[in-house]
Amino acid sequence: MKDDAARRLPGYYAWTLAMEPRFSDMDPNRHLNNVAVMVFFEEARVRFNRHIVETTPGLIRPRYLVAHASVDYLAEGRYPDSLTMAYAIGNIGRTSIRAQKALFQGTDCIALCDTVLVHRGETGPAPLPDDLRSRLEAFAPRV
Amino acid sequence: MKDDAARRLPGYYAWTLAMEPRFSDMDPNRHLNNVAVMVFFEEARVRFNRHIVETTPGLIRPRYLVAHASVDYLAEGRYPDSLTMAYAIGNIGRTSIRAQKALFQGTDCIALCDTVLVHRGETGPAPLPDDLRSRLEAFAPRV
Amino acid sequence: MKDDAARRLPGYYAWTLAMEPRFSDMDPNRHLNNVAVMVFFEEARVRFNRHIVETTPGLIRPRYLVAHASVDYLAEGRYPDSLTMAYAIGNIGRTSIRAQKALFQGTDCIALCDTVLVHRGETGPAPLPDDLRSRLEAFAPRV
Amino acid sequence: MKDDAARRLPGYYAWTLAMEPRFSDMDPNRHLNNVAVMVFFEEARVRFNRHIVETTPGLIRPRYLVAHASVDYLAEGRYPDSLTMAYAIGNIGRTSIRAQKALFQGTDCIALCDTVLVHRGETGPAPLPDDLRSRLEAFAPRV
Repeated sequence: MKDDAARRLPGYYAWTLAMEPRFSDMDPNRHLNNVAVMVFFEEARVRFNRHIVETTPGLIRPRYLVAHASVDYLAEGRYPDSLTMAYAIGNIGRTSIRAQKALFQGTDCIALCDTVLVHRGETGPAPLPDDLRSRLEAFAPRV
Repeated sequence: MKDDAARRLPGYYAWTLAMEPRFSDMDPNRHLNNVAVMVFFEEARVRFNRHIVETTPGLIRPRYLVAHASVDYLAEGRYPDSLTMAYAIGNIGRTSIRAQKALFQGTDCIALCDTVLVHRGETGPAPLPDDLRSRLEAFAPRV
Repeated sequence: MKDDAARRLPGYYAWTLAMEPRFSDMDPNRHLNNVAVMVFFEEARVRFNRHIVETTPGLIRPRYLVAHASVDYLAEGRYPDSLTMAYAIGNIGRTSIRAQKALFQGTDCIALCDTVLVHRGETGPAPLPDDLRSRLEAFAPRV
Repeated sequence: MKDDAARRLPGYYAWTLAMEPRFSDMDPNRHLNNVAVMVFFEEARVRFNRHIVETTPGLIRPRYLVAHASVDYLAEGRYPDSLTMAYAIGNIGRTSIRAQKALFQGTDCIALCDTVLVHRGETGPAPLPDDLRSRLEAFAPRV
């Protein structure tokens, strides 16, 4: 991720979310903790999924399982500076998607994250329904 | 990681740590949360580093920066079943190391994690000192 | 606290802070966890102290130790409904203050919290300086 | 609580639980965070309840709602020193109990906590069943 300069630019991403860090996100080194950064990315994922459901009439709420996550930590995050979470859907497979995420503070890209989300049916991975698929395509990276 | 069957076996790893999950590690789906799994891996890393310092006479306590983390989530973790964290040093570069980690509950491998740790000097990445390097070599994967 | 009806009203408090809950604040019962509520109150305390320092020219940043906290849990909190943290300084002693806090979601008072904060000098509790004391008096409850 | 010297002694309590702190429990001041202390007390409560259910044949698993919590912070907690959580049932009412808790590191009493737990039926507070009541009586303070 980090070797792709485009990934560090806000303009790459199709959706953003403003967040505030908490005092409890700091670690003993007085920076935003690496695990707290994962909490921020989790929150972006959950809020993005809610956004999709709320803005797509008739869509059945999809359930996902996180199968994989990769994070590049690029700079130390600071409290209490506001966060901007940026989100794009980088790949849409038959039963899974790859979410591409970035965390910014001001113009600094603090971290990049890729997550593989598997769409869950009753008994295991299930094909993405067409309405979900076409909705997600609208959030492809702006490249 | 997950395609390497050896990585899912406890015998691959050179060091282990017993841990207990907490009620607060569960998410609304009553499984151990994905981010909690990152906390477990962080704890294994911190405790391993302490172990190295405490068992290597004369070693100056190294400081690392986490540059990258990748996680494969293989199964849902359960509360309150005990955890076994497994640890190996997979690669030793000039200024960085790759830590290979696994999380087990009983005989189930719940998650795999690779972390790139950069050794920090006063002004940036610094070469690993020889005594640290040779100590870490003792924790290579058992393959 | 809970038997004092005034404490459940937003108008009682002298300062407020808007916050957003996180998915990770939910517990297995899908409500905002009791400990997460403590995180919210901690955040309100830290942000209030920053506010005081930033708006009081010449004030030396005070350091406090939390000696006591009491919480009344009045209702279940919901994700992702926004939070309003409300804050007042209920008592100002020689070396300590009592912070009175409430957590609202919409018009519902979810929890009340009282915290005893001891002002710390180099070697233990230290008298509150006059400029801090008079600044804090401006945040007395609106009763 | 803190003015009752007996409460600071391990011998007061009827049940104990060993726990390990985590790196993530530390705050920017390198002490165990006040909120982390609440997590430890939560964990003690959950594990105590499980213990009661597992050791009382025929007992229907009780569900509680935490109505109130009070904490006295007596000393700074240290990482990675082991924790001993101590637990007693101080009062048994018709529909609620008061749990008395202490957190020790070595012989130091770090914090005291009292929690009011309301026994929940389908529609609100429900009388404690007799078998639960008599089981809980066995965990009265040792005074």
